[in-house]
Amino acid sequence: MERTPVMTSINANWEEFYSKEISEKLPFFAKEDRLYDCLFAQQFDREILTGLFKTADALRTLTQHKEGMDFISNLLSDKRAMLYFVQPSTRTFLSFLNACHIMGIKTSEIRDTSTSSEVKGESAEDTVRTFSSYVDMIIMRHPTPGFVEKTAWLMNRTNRPVPIINGGSGKDQHPTQALLDTYTLYRSFNGEMDNKTIVMVGDLKRGRTVRSLTYLMKNYKNIKLAFVSPGQFRMEPDILEFLKRHNMPYVETEDFSSVMKEADAIYMTRIQDEHDKAGESGKVDYSPFYFRREHLKLIKKTCVIMHPLPRRHEIEVSVDEDPRAVFWRQERNGMWARAALISHIFGVDSKIKH
Amino acid sequence: MERTPVMTSINANWEEFYSKEISEKLPFFAKEDRLYDCLFAQQFDREILTGLFKTADALRTLTQHKEGMDFISNLLSDKRAMLYFVQPSTRTFLSFLNACHIMGIKTSEIRDTSTSSEVKGESAEDTVRTFSSYVDMIIMRHPTPGFVEKTAWLMNRTNRPVPIINGGSGKDQHPTQALLDTYTLYRSFNGEMDNKTIVMVGDLKRGRTVRSLTYLMKNYKNIKLAFVSPGQFRMEPDILEFLKRHNMPYVETEDFSSVMKEADAIYMTRIQDEHDKAGESGKVDYSPFYFRREHLKLIKKTCVIMHPLPRRHEIEVSVDEDPRAVFWRQERNGMWARAALISHIFGVDSKIKH
Amino acid sequence: MERTPVMTSINANWEEFYSKEISEKLPFFAKEDRLYDCLFAQQFDREILTGLFKTADALRTLTQHKEGMDFISNLLSDKRAMLYFVQPSTRTFLSFLNACHIMGIKTSEIRDTSTSSEVKGESAEDTVRTFSSYVDMIIMRHPTPGFVEKTAWLMNRTNRPVPIINGGSGKDQHPTQALLDTYTLYRSFNGEMDNKTIVMVGDLKRGRTVRSLTYLMKNYKNIKLAFVSPGQFRMEPDILEFLKRHNMPYVETEDFSSVMKEADAIYMTRIQDEHDKAGESGKVDYSPFYFRREHLKLIKKTCVIMHPLPRRHEIEVSVDEDPRAVFWRQERNGMWARAALISHIFGVDSKIKH
Repeated sequence: MERTPVMTSINANWEEFYSKEISEKLPFFAKEDRLYDCLFAQQFDREILTGLFKTADALRTLTQHKEGMDFISNLLSDKRAMLYFVQPSTRTFLSFLNACHIMGIKTSEIRDTSTSSEVKGESAEDTVRTFSSYVDMIIMRHPTPGFVEKTAWLMNRTNRPVPIINGGSGKDQHPTQALLDTYTLYRSFNGEMDNKTIVMVGDLKRGRTVRSLTYLMKNYKNIKLAFVSPGQFRMEPDILEFLKRHNMPYVETEDFSSVMKEADAIYMTRIQDEHDKAGESGKVDYSPFYFRREHLKLIKKTCVIMHPLPRRHEIEVSVDEDPRAVFWRQERNGMWARAALISHIFGVDSKIKH
Repeated sequence: MERTPVMTSINANWEEFYSKEISEKLPFFAKEDRLYDCLFAQQFDREILTGLFKTADALRTLTQHKEGMDFISNLLSDKRAMLYFVQPSTRTFLSFLNACHIMGIKTSEIRDTSTSSEVKGESAEDTVRTFSSYVDMIIMRHPTPGFVEKTAWLMNRTNRPVPIINGGSGKDQHPTQALLDTYTLYRSFNGEMDNKTIVMVGDLKRGRTVRSLTYLMKNYKNIKLAFVSPGQFRMEPDILEFLKRHNMPYVETEDFSSVMKEADAIYMTRIQDEHDKAGESGKVDYSPFYFRREHLKLIKKTCVIMHPLPRRHEIEVSVDEDPRAVFWRQERNGMWARAALISHIFGVDSKIKH
Repeated sequence: MERTPVMTSINANWEEFYSKEISEKLPFFAKEDRLYDCLFAQQFDREILTGLFKTADALRTLTQHKEGMDFISNLLSDKRAMLYFVQPSTRTFLSFLNACHIMGIKTSEIRDTSTSSEVKGESAEDTVRTFSSYVDMIIMRHPTPGFVEKTAWLMNRTNRPVPIINGGSGKDQHPTQALLDTYTLYRSFNGEMDNKTIVMVGDLKRGRTVRSLTYLMKNYKNIKLAFVSPGQFRMEPDILEFLKRHNMPYVETEDFSSVMKEADAIYMTRIQDEHDKAGESGKVDYSPFYFRREHLKLIKKTCVIMHPLPRRHEIEVSVDEDPRAVFWRQERNGMWARAALISHIFGVDSKIKH
């Protein structure tokens, strides 16, 4: 009979670290004036965001011609990245993969855990350390809250750390989604981020994206927020507390039309029924939280309609043809924002400004 | 309860488009004098075919040396392609993937639909549009007839279309298989395509390749066809009608040996029992439709033996060593023909002629 | 009803070849003075090993700077490799994949046999020949003993052979694991390989790595071996015979502490319970075959602790921080040793020496 191994001090140290406030942890995941690991939306302050957005804009411009693309894809041609996606995710996966390819980074993928050594009894920590042996960066999506952070923490204690990028960890964090959402606002508003009204619609209780985006709005001045949701799926109290603490005004309502007219951006979300505990989604009439073709007449000429995708029926397909429907561009923005983030982490962003 | 979304005009338009004759649709999938999307074997006329074959020949010659390969793999080094293969297909998948790699195109793959956002309730159209956000070309295999065509149709209506290549859609079309089969004839006949006798053998009723190849034979002069099959699996009437309409002579027989001697090419196929409805394949003696070692003595010295592969027992393994057995070369021709097609679509074929 | 195909002479020839001594087969898998296929640990003699290790060392040095990495990744930029891994293997797979990427080789992967043409009734030999159509090298892991060898044998009889590298075939051979283990000894011992004592610990009966490593030790002078294992899992008699034949001294013991002190290297292994026939692993107390933190005080200051990984509890996690724990470096050595092997096979190693 195998005995349980003697408990080491590592997990004890981790628990202590993990329980700290995020603000206290940030230096551990930074390197000089840059992000080293990207784990939390809270790592993005206004200056970092603006830098990343300018890099992303420069990347798009440069890559419109073959010479520019060849220049860019030579910047990190000596690097290899691992995409370790334990949870299904086509969109985030492809976005990161192609961001790597734009930067010339070679990629390895693990998308199916059944091919993994975990079947041979290896610990999750050893598995990730193995991946790090072969590459210069790991991009991870993992269902266990804190697991991506723990990986970064462990790596940083070895003599051969590699940057870890969080591609979504449990329900807690998905920082690059927040990054691309903010980048989409930045492009839609021509860089003028202050004094805007953002309306968030749908299942705000269980949607990770609206939470992170709200956090990031703190970086800008005089932002007004409106939360439109069924009563059962209202924004969580911790976020509302956060807004009060930072003197950011908000309203909560079930009446979409009452706030639609003032919006500079409408952020639609689908119902997150994969998080249902007892079929609660089925009991809700979600249709008042749809954006319909007729609404196009009601919103500002400059108001943009966003959605993190995938959508179900929250936005009518015929809306797609309106120039204010920016969710397809938003999706593509994700690839550029992630390429900019990778450039930043490896310190080649200064070569990209045009 | 979620309500059904209001029906938009998009599907109605599509149904109308889809019901048109293929010849009417061709301009919609072309761009100037080139193919933009590759969806139907009918898109290949004699001139396009000859151009593609010359490009494929030039690619093979140039890539025999490292300098040539490096030159070729720089031509489209700024491009990224997505291979979206919902149906299992090792051969076509690898052939396209390596064709992309030869051309220097970076690739993303979705081969397993369970990792896809479809599980989150996204429509198939949105899923494909997502893929197109990240890449410059999509190569698709899909079980639903018309789905690849619909994707190309939808993409061409957006403000950011990308070329779509059909890697096999349901039972209806597999144009690059027809392309590589014709290319194999072209190479085997040293470019002299007219005045040939082609014998097709096996399950002609349900084999997609023999149908497409027959269509393409119309591009050449004085072609004679012989169809050898069990009575249950004869070539479908629409193809026979097509031949009559174009005054192309053909015979149908169950006696392989009666037509073997005259053949310039013998195209063998396996029984397509995956399409059985009630085990009909098991009731057929397929062995008269095998090519055996002893047949090598009966055919012309210049006759080539083809097979789209995979084979079961239709061709004895010991036949492989005869120089007239070209099916392994045929398989490899597929990679070169596909690389040529990609070069054509992106307009770099003019740089490849040697 | 389909008839069984006529039996050809191919399998008969193969059986005859397969039954030969490995030493007799070696010329068939070599090309001039180089390995062409890499199938057996027995292909590595001292001279080849030293050459590969020097190449691996040079690769590491050169790739520390971007210019060096770009130089290296241009050496084989005209090549494409196929990784065909029918058995689950994250570690070996990623190690080879990244070795290819370092050398600039483009890669295709088949990791899931359900996507393969095997479902359409194709023979395993035809499937592998198909893969070879598209690439310049195949790296294979396969559960069937002899299958990788048979593939290489078949390929070498065609007019378009490609090198085959064995990434693990059944229980019989995993030559690149032996290569990386020996490379780790070479680096740990600063190239002084003679006069060493190697202690191997654990399930020696069913562990493939300890068998291969023992074979390779024959290349060095005055090596002493100690085998520490539960009585049920002792090293197999054929290996002990091999040692006697070559006058290599060894001891067998169940008492780990009795041999620990003299070791220059301790090679730990996990219990191979996936090979259990009737739950025999559960009946063994494996804990005496663990390396614990307290053992660090007992071993030589220069003794290295190795493990092929994945580990379960054979090595306490807190041991990892000791500089003598080299198993994470060993894992990374695998990537470099494989890159060196690939360089050797394609004959570009002479360009790498620095």
